[in-house]
Amino acid sequence: MSTHSSTEPRRGSRRQPDASRKAILTAALAEFAREGLAGARVDSIADAAGVNKALLYYYFHDKETLYGATLENFFAPLHQRVMEVCDRPGSAGGRFLHYAREHFDSIAASPHHARIFMGELMSASRGGKTHLDRILTKYMLPIGMRVLALLQEGVESGEFRPVDPAQFVPTAIGSIVHYFLTAPLRQRFVKLMPMAELSLEDRRAAVLDFIAAALFADRAAGIKLAAKIAGETTSHPQDTKPALSRTKGKRK
Amino acid sequence: MSTHSSTEPRRGSRRQPDASRKAILTAALAEFAREGLAGARVDSIADAAGVNKALLYYYFHDKETLYGATLENFFAPLHQRVMEVCDRPGSAGGRFLHYAREHFDSIAASPHHARIFMGELMSASRGGKTHLDRILTKYMLPIGMRVLALLQEGVESGEFRPVDPAQFVPTAIGSIVHYFLTAPLRQRFVKLMPMAELSLEDRRAAVLDFIAAALFADRAAGIKLAAKIAGETTSHPQDTKPALSRTKGKRK
Repeated sequence: MSTHSSTEPRRGSRRQPDASRKAILTAALAEFAREGLAGARVDSIADAAGVNKALLYYYFHDKETLYGATLENFFAPLHQRVMEVCDRPGSAGGRFLHYAREHFDSIAASPHHARIFMGELMSASRGGKTHLDRILTKYMLPIGMRVLALLQEGVESGEFRPVDPAQFVPTAIGSIVHYFLTAPLRQRFVKLMPMAELSLEDRRAAVLDFIAAALFADRAAGIKLAAKIAGETTSHPQDTKPALSRTKGKRK
Repeated sequence: MSTHSSTEPRRGSRRQPDASRKAILTAALAEFAREGLAGARVDSIADAAGVNKALLYYYFHDKETLYGATLENFFAPLHQRVMEVCDRPGSAGGRFLHYAREHFDSIAASPHHARIFMGELMSASRGGKTHLDRILTKYMLPIGMRVLALLQEGVESGEFRPVDPAQFVPTAIGSIVHYFLTAPLRQRFVKLMPMAELSLEDRRAAVLDFIAAALFADRAAGIKLAAKIAGETTSHPQDTKPALSRTKGKRK
């Protein structure tokens, strides 16, 4: 973890430092999702969080740092959850489907982050300065490598059919994230065709079913396992929407 | 087709009206992909196209209309190609995989359009005015309905396993488009891990393989058919990058 200002000992709001930080991050997330990095206004964020601007700058230094913290706030817990499910004991199949569920649920818990991430992709495609390189190196690459190794493990054991993990990982991720990236489209689509409305639970089950049907050597067994995992009430501590204070990591 | 100014009889460039229109649309596509609708400058487009601004406005009325024409230029031929493959004789399986190939190839032929479309999704998610409603009603909804009916046909005949078409269509589309939407990410990723580079041909084959493996009741037969279709040299007239003049539709 870096030692930038956002993790330094708090002061300036002696009563509720954690609550103030959380309020700032929550307000920033909504503002950045709506306006993008360039359009977001620090004044609006401070107003929405009910703090003065000096406190915001004390915690987060500048708008860029605050923006980076909102990305960090999504990818750090995602990384932690994915590593946890991949490192569990058990078959590669069960762990891969649990990974897919975690990835789906992490985005579902924070649709604002999907929008911010799309903004990052847009900026990157226009050659702009982005936070993608840091997020890629620190989180996405380790997640991708871990999931790739898990797929390789299942291919080698014969539990999976002989797919190319370097192809299967992006395809699986595409089927997981598509629902969220196209949310604005779906909202319009559903107005025209209300029958096309898909609940989050149904969508999650369909994604796991799709991945299992494409992946397992014993397809029927894979589909059955996917249905079981999609229907589980997960019991691990990160099951609820991550608390912002936890996602910022270590206390000093 | 509407009768807006862009389809009126040409004048003002008597020598090469089609060439001028094409040059403007090509320049506009690049400018909109790079700068977005708000950031794009008509002066830059006219300069890049080598035409004067009066001619640009004569053909396209205003920046909005020109922007709409670049979207039209992608979705009209996509719609035409998808309808053509879906309406062919033959099994639902072969037609569905050909549809997937057409969709993949259409985006591959014009990565600028993927970026513009992401920009539309971003604007829509921020509540801005977009062209999505028109594109949705005119092209995406008919494409979605046709592909949905094709899936239903294959499920009913027993060629496909009993998937929910309303879930399978967005999942298949997600696996088709993900490669293009995340292009900026992949470029950075490949710098860190050159082995992760995936060619367009390999990617297309992997997407068809994935869809077939998840969809066909007889998975082995589906996978074999997907490999055959991915490797085909298509022979229909739209196989090459669509000529801009053709995509604008009817002459009067």
